[in-house]
Amino acid sequence: MADDDPGVAPTVESTAEDIAAMRIRGAATIADAAAAALASQADRSEAETPAAFRRQLRAAAKSLYETRPTAVSLPNALRYVLRGTDGETVADLRKSTIARAEAFRRDLDQAQDKLGEIGANRLRDGDIVMTHCHSTDALSCIEAALDAGKEIEAIVKETRPRKQGHITARQLRERDVPVTLIVDNAARRYLDRADHVLVGADSIAADGSVVNKVGTSGLAVNARERGVPVMVAAQTIKLHPDTMTGHTVEIEMRDEREVLAAEDDLDDADDGLVVENPAFDVTPPRYVDAIVTERGQFPPESIVTLMRELFGETTDEPWEA
Amino acid sequence: MADDDPGVAPTVESTAEDIAAMRIRGAATIADAAAAALASQADRSEAETPAAFRRQLRAAAKSLYETRPTAVSLPNALRYVLRGTDGETVADLRKSTIARAEAFRRDLDQAQDKLGEIGANRLRDGDIVMTHCHSTDALSCIEAALDAGKEIEAIVKETRPRKQGHITARQLRERDVPVTLIVDNAARRYLDRADHVLVGADSIAADGSVVNKVGTSGLAVNARERGVPVMVAAQTIKLHPDTMTGHTVEIEMRDEREVLAAEDDLDDADDGLVVENPAFDVTPPRYVDAIVTERGQFPPESIVTLMRELFGETTDEPWEA
Amino acid sequence: MADDDPGVAPTVESTAEDIAAMRIRGAATIADAAAAALASQADRSEAETPAAFRRQLRAAAKSLYETRPTAVSLPNALRYVLRGTDGETVADLRKSTIARAEAFRRDLDQAQDKLGEIGANRLRDGDIVMTHCHSTDALSCIEAALDAGKEIEAIVKETRPRKQGHITARQLRERDVPVTLIVDNAARRYLDRADHVLVGADSIAADGSVVNKVGTSGLAVNARERGVPVMVAAQTIKLHPDTMTGHTVEIEMRDEREVLAAEDDLDDADDGLVVENPAFDVTPPRYVDAIVTERGQFPPESIVTLMRELFGETTDEPWEA
Amino acid sequence: MADDDPGVAPTVESTAEDIAAMRIRGAATIADAAAAALASQADRSEAETPAAFRRQLRAAAKSLYETRPTAVSLPNALRYVLRGTDGETVADLRKSTIARAEAFRRDLDQAQDKLGEIGANRLRDGDIVMTHCHSTDALSCIEAALDAGKEIEAIVKETRPRKQGHITARQLRERDVPVTLIVDNAARRYLDRADHVLVGADSIAADGSVVNKVGTSGLAVNARERGVPVMVAAQTIKLHPDTMTGHTVEIEMRDEREVLAAEDDLDDADDGLVVENPAFDVTPPRYVDAIVTERGQFPPESIVTLMRELFGETTDEPWEA
Amino acid sequence: MADDDPGVAPTVESTAEDIAAMRIRGAATIADAAAAALASQADRSEAETPAAFRRQLRAAAKSLYETRPTAVSLPNALRYVLRGTDGETVADLRKSTIARAEAFRRDLDQAQDKLGEIGANRLRDGDIVMTHCHSTDALSCIEAALDAGKEIEAIVKETRPRKQGHITARQLRERDVPVTLIVDNAARRYLDRADHVLVGADSIAADGSVVNKVGTSGLAVNARERGVPVMVAAQTIKLHPDTMTGHTVEIEMRDEREVLAAEDDLDDADDGLVVENPAFDVTPPRYVDAIVTERGQFPPESIVTLMRELFGETTDEPWEA
Amino acid sequence: MADDDPGVAPTVESTAEDIAAMRIRGAATIADAAAAALASQADRSEAETPAAFRRQLRAAAKSLYETRPTAVSLPNALRYVLRGTDGETVADLRKSTIARAEAFRRDLDQAQDKLGEIGANRLRDGDIVMTHCHSTDALSCIEAALDAGKEIEAIVKETRPRKQGHITARQLRERDVPVTLIVDNAARRYLDRADHVLVGADSIAADGSVVNKVGTSGLAVNARERGVPVMVAAQTIKLHPDTMTGHTVEIEMRDEREVLAAEDDLDDADDGLVVENPAFDVTPPRYVDAIVTERGQFPPESIVTLMRELFGETTDEPWEA
Repeated sequence: MADDDPGVAPTVESTAEDIAAMRIRGAATIADAAAAALASQADRSEAETPAAFRRQLRAAAKSLYETRPTAVSLPNALRYVLRGTDGETVADLRKSTIARAEAFRRDLDQAQDKLGEIGANRLRDGDIVMTHCHSTDALSCIEAALDAGKEIEAIVKETRPRKQGHITARQLRERDVPVTLIVDNAARRYLDRADHVLVGADSIAADGSVVNKVGTSGLAVNARERGVPVMVAAQTIKLHPDTMTGHTVEIEMRDEREVLAAEDDLDDADDGLVVENPAFDVTPPRYVDAIVTERGQFPPESIVTLMRELFGETTDEPWEA
Repeated sequence: MADDDPGVAPTVESTAEDIAAMRIRGAATIADAAAAALASQADRSEAETPAAFRRQLRAAAKSLYETRPTAVSLPNALRYVLRGTDGETVADLRKSTIARAEAFRRDLDQAQDKLGEIGANRLRDGDIVMTHCHSTDALSCIEAALDAGKEIEAIVKETRPRKQGHITARQLRERDVPVTLIVDNAARRYLDRADHVLVGADSIAADGSVVNKVGTSGLAVNARERGVPVMVAAQTIKLHPDTMTGHTVEIEMRDEREVLAAEDDLDDADDGLVVENPAFDVTPPRYVDAIVTERGQFPPESIVTLMRELFGETTDEPWEA
Repeated sequence: MADDDPGVAPTVESTAEDIAAMRIRGAATIADAAAAALASQADRSEAETPAAFRRQLRAAAKSLYETRPTAVSLPNALRYVLRGTDGETVADLRKSTIARAEAFRRDLDQAQDKLGEIGANRLRDGDIVMTHCHSTDALSCIEAALDAGKEIEAIVKETRPRKQGHITARQLRERDVPVTLIVDNAARRYLDRADHVLVGADSIAADGSVVNKVGTSGLAVNARERGVPVMVAAQTIKLHPDTMTGHTVEIEMRDEREVLAAEDDLDDADDGLVVENPAFDVTPPRYVDAIVTERGQFPPESIVTLMRELFGETTDEPWEA
Repeated sequence: MADDDPGVAPTVESTAEDIAAMRIRGAATIADAAAAALASQADRSEAETPAAFRRQLRAAAKSLYETRPTAVSLPNALRYVLRGTDGETVADLRKSTIARAEAFRRDLDQAQDKLGEIGANRLRDGDIVMTHCHSTDALSCIEAALDAGKEIEAIVKETRPRKQGHITARQLRERDVPVTLIVDNAARRYLDRADHVLVGADSIAADGSVVNKVGTSGLAVNARERGVPVMVAAQTIKLHPDTMTGHTVEIEMRDEREVLAAEDDLDDADDGLVVENPAFDVTPPRYVDAIVTERGQFPPESIVTLMRELFGETTDEPWEA
Repeated sequence: MADDDPGVAPTVESTAEDIAAMRIRGAATIADAAAAALASQADRSEAETPAAFRRQLRAAAKSLYETRPTAVSLPNALRYVLRGTDGETVADLRKSTIARAEAFRRDLDQAQDKLGEIGANRLRDGDIVMTHCHSTDALSCIEAALDAGKEIEAIVKETRPRKQGHITARQLRERDVPVTLIVDNAARRYLDRADHVLVGADSIAADGSVVNKVGTSGLAVNARERGVPVMVAAQTIKLHPDTMTGHTVEIEMRDEREVLAAEDDLDDADDGLVVENPAFDVTPPRYVDAIVTERGQFPPESIVTLMRELFGETTDEPWEA
Repeated sequence: MADDDPGVAPTVESTAEDIAAMRIRGAATIADAAAAALASQADRSEAETPAAFRRQLRAAAKSLYETRPTAVSLPNALRYVLRGTDGETVADLRKSTIARAEAFRRDLDQAQDKLGEIGANRLRDGDIVMTHCHSTDALSCIEAALDAGKEIEAIVKETRPRKQGHITARQLRERDVPVTLIVDNAARRYLDRADHVLVGADSIAADGSVVNKVGTSGLAVNARERGVPVMVAAQTIKLHPDTMTGHTVEIEMRDEREVLAAEDDLDDADDGLVVENPAFDVTPPRYVDAIVTERGQFPPESIVTLMRELFGETTDEPWEA
């Protein structure tokens, strides 16, 4: 193997291509594929020295990482697996890496169910939950509560512009949860009836901020003012590793056509009229009461500890080392 | 005239019918018509004694009031005029009533312009104003600021469910105001750019609460949290007289079809899915910095003083006396 | 009549003696007696000049005032009547004074009922009200709501040390109001169920502070934190005139035996153990949503306007002039 | 007298010149001179009709007003006097105007003493007062408390840039008040010892905002956070009439040399280094507990009522009518 | 040993019986006994394989746990010991388990003293401490401060319904601490004098909430509002392991006879009168400044980290594995 | 070597002397020298047993510690190195100690640069940063942002009494950062323009409190009120180990001549005039959004976890063991 041959396995390359081409998509699916690819790299590595093995593994991780550097779950999967690569011989390194990747994938597979059970424990029989947007993590908490025999009602915000609240409403109705659908503007009025605000997360930052569908932060501020606790359901693959080094999460700006319908009587050729459509906003930790993960619940201010435990304490990317 | 003949003038009756039939509608138009009707009653009264004159006037006021007892501006017009009925003779009573009605109508005619100038004085050159819903009172503040040569920009919330923000956006664009249109969920994020929140009011209560388009209270709470002052533009005919006696303002619930469009994929025959669509909400005075009226600006906590000054300090309706 | 004869009527003197000897007691009873005494003074005055009449009236007011200068309702009654003394002749002065005293007494007689109706308007059918101590003004709001056909429930704090909450509980049970009795320590926990906090007042200061049974201010702070509005029911004779001139309300310290029962195993001869038992505390206006009086409801910050309107705008006592 | 002769008395003109030339200066001195000038105008008017008399008086007021339109006390004096001009004949108008001017000047002369007594009533024996800047109104409260035999201590902020706190410290030491002098940065730390924050005001706005020496608003926010009440001492001539019509108070920017001393090692020829030195800032009413005036104490939210009572309810300047 | 013989040592069984029968009671005593039982189990195990040893140990832990699953200290002791069971041979497992149990018991024995010293470091000479209920952990902080030569005063809330404040007062008087006893309602008024609020804890949840005697949360909210820091003294055996998995702490409802004395004139046969008597309430972490344990002080938001460190990071009970 | 010879190396002694004599000063310099001294001790130890080696090392640490027990960085360096001393033989102990000391010194050397990069990631292009005092840690964040091509502006508080803001201003101007210099009193007014408050720290306590130049806490409270996030830049050597055991940080009181200049016209012989000049104040964690260290950013509430990780979890000093 030549010096400049990174020795990255073909399975890694094809996984990288699939992620880049968005044939592999969704936070959990990407993370799972990335861990599998690293296991495959370890399995097929022809490295003769531990150093070479590690170099190849890092190269594999790097090529995977660079396919979608803004996907939170991808670097988490890579970091988690690399942190478990341990041993003095190639054989040991291979074995430990594969075992770590398998552990990651196994945990990931069970994560939403575990998270749901933990979140459900915060809900009491008869509670009314207000939701924002659509989050399978958040829904799994309600579902686990129903499975435990609790009666739960929901106040569902429609969540403009894309009205993902409708998906939430439908899925809750499939479980026979009584649903009150409201426009986002009505949230403060209905908070008086709610026992919890329950949302998911797009990602969670080291400073405890929760990045989630735009409108979450305004809802959380109102919930605090009305005395309603706010609960965020998020698997640990949502913990944002870059934020440990101070990086702020870039907020995606989406198409203005999501806001302005074709029939709306506004002149979109008018330069003086700008439609801004941010996908997410940032909720400071002081407005969040608990972050529920598959590894337990945490106050947002201590999530950084879990982040460091799972994904490493270094301020450098492990594949750069 | 028989004892049981209230002696209400035909013009009063026809005005009452027009209000009841909503041929006369809109807060200012109703108030103007009611004052005109009382003037007409005074003008045409055939009462021979001051007591009879007053009795007839009260009967006229009562018949007008009963056409739409929940319209705030109507009892205000009646109370204002009746408070000015003064004199020892029928002639004096007639003269004072007519003069009072004319003063009311003249003030009313100029109210929005005056209010606009006062509100404009709170806006500085270069300020960015966030709006909610559509209010001609609020817009008149921006327009007066533009007339005074100030540059103003606007961040316009679309205001679901009926998207009256689009009307606001269009009218501001007609005045060449740069407009950024956002969904209601994005408000907290854009408050960081705003120098003022500016809204109108459906009515204002004696305890300083502002009843306005649903979403106002949530916006005001967020504005306070973000350090942005909240300014409510409202003519004095919006001051709610019943609230002096503790009455809470009834919040209208509107058709769920405003929330749920025909194409929305939700089963509206499902009894477990309720759509609630309140038209208004109530913002406590502690989240409002100033109420701008045509008689000056007031902290919300002192609006009750203006209310008593204009519409009477009695806890009984003057037409019941 | 000699120059140094104040010309105070014997009926005034006997009323003064009865107030001083606490044969006349209770805020409303004292106020009523004081107004009646001034009417009697006006009726029986033998003054020959307007100046003499006024001098006698002031002397009568002063002698009444000095019987119990800390009773809030007493100076209010005096101030109210003196403010209505008007005319150029002794006859006119007499007539106006008597009429004013009668108006005061008539209003006073109806005050609690009117206040109750106004307060009841703030309560909706099905509301749960948390009470502190025992206040007939507060109870009259609940009773008027019941009379209006509303269902009301109550959470009654026992109100240590004297447990006046038990009186409240009994009286509410007589009206078949469902009552949950709790210790004062449990208030925050039960605020989640309450729609209102409803208390009376010992007196209300010009800066909007509410002086009431100790524990009110802590409850109000918790109510704000839990999002529950606080409503104070108080007749206008509770408005404290001295506070217009900055005087703070002196808080009575009561017997430690109210706190420490005979059977309590604490050594009351121990100088190092002090029992402090203040009767009242002061709630800042920012934790009160509305003060309900017989003349309407007011935000606490505007109560000074009502105070000045009823009892005079001067910073001097009218009987000192 | 020709139509275009405004008939303004020479004494008015000389007063106007003295104010313009700042030979007459200081809020109270200006107000006194303006009232005297209007009395003089009334006294010397040769108007033959009431209309002419009023026209001349307005012209006099206008010429006085225009000398220093930003001085708050000047329009207040003019408005106060003009509001008292009453009568059907020139003689009556003259008499009422002169009487009103005299009343104004007499009240003004006693205002600080009265204010001091009222403010002193808020201070208890043994209280510790934190001061900012130097205000004779604020000091008069402490002095009246001392005169009443109370022991008062002071924590004096130095008040950069001009260190007016040193003047306060000296004057308090002359009265033997124990003084702790601190830098402005140490305020929050010493608030734990303070029972009151006591400041004066440059002017007070209709929305209840207090315009005072820069640093007041930051101090007030910290005082609220530390649980220390804030008391503003201000004579009624500080109530800012323009703000009733929404005008914001213009904040004077002062010389950067007040901030940067000659010996400071900063390159003042450097365009990238700007020194900003605002004289005042604006404290929202929610951080102020009481405004103490010579007419009593008021919550800041109700000061607009006093403003309207003293200086008129019209939104137009009386000299423009 | 048969497969279905769990091999639980008789000493374990007798300890389990004693705990179940409440012959062993009190958080520390139970924890100590449970650790001793596990050491005994390890010592006497006849297991021949590491797997069998571990299975027996888990069975022993489980039988102990099931005696009182709601006692917080019991699972903590079991989890702590099981986490230290380490080794490849039965001998090593035995040795490590015994050592771990001994370490636990030794730490437990010293915990309150250590905690007291740490808490005492937060108290300065001359400080005034407000207490609620009776907590030996809280008292040990004051005692350690006294031992260090500091003068401390106490304001003791009586703590209805059971007046445990009297016990606190007596114990403080034994140490010559000056005590001011107040009713719970007087707390806000006396917070102005206090430098600290100091309470114990029944248990502490993973989300940082403090479960303690009812009234704690209301006191903490008032302390924040008054600017007084709140300090919770709690040994680590109070950290509630179930809450890591989202379980809320069940609040015990106690006998209404604690609230209502025999002599109280309330009809307890009246179904409309309910007495509710919760033993505890939940204080959110945002109202607590520090939790003092024998392992140092922690902000409440980071206590979950200590909980995981001591008692395990798994979301499953170790005896279920 | 005699039993009572602690065996401390001469290089340790000379370092101790240099620290005591303040020839070695500055947090980082002291920490570096202390770690080097321990490495030297390990290198030159003639101990023949591991126990002796450890005893000598502890003695060396203790002698270094006692030179300046209040310097935060000194015990941190000692604790960090001692925690890495590991091995069963003297050789291993020597090797591990030296390696640990080298790691500490290498990290320390890079700490400010790393911290700067992390802090810079929180700053966006075009942001305006408000600074207080002078901190090289804080400045390194701005410099790293500039190095990354971002445009940053600064609002620099002068920071009385010693005006270290002038140093900050000069250093920022050297990097061509546009600077607005203001007095401390103007901070709240200029917070409306600021995107961040950025300060350093003198030390950081286990309860998350930030000890920094007096004025920081007042600024942080105002920043929260204005909605501006507060960022503290502090290397981990500023984490205060004593505070884990509850110790409060002693605030140094400095010379009153820093406050009172020679030319100030205040009588410094006057015993009634005290100048208090605390160097630092304490900002509670709830007013700080992030603490930026060279090991990543942390919410203040979780800094205790980092503290324990780096410097040990024991509540005893390692050199006392």
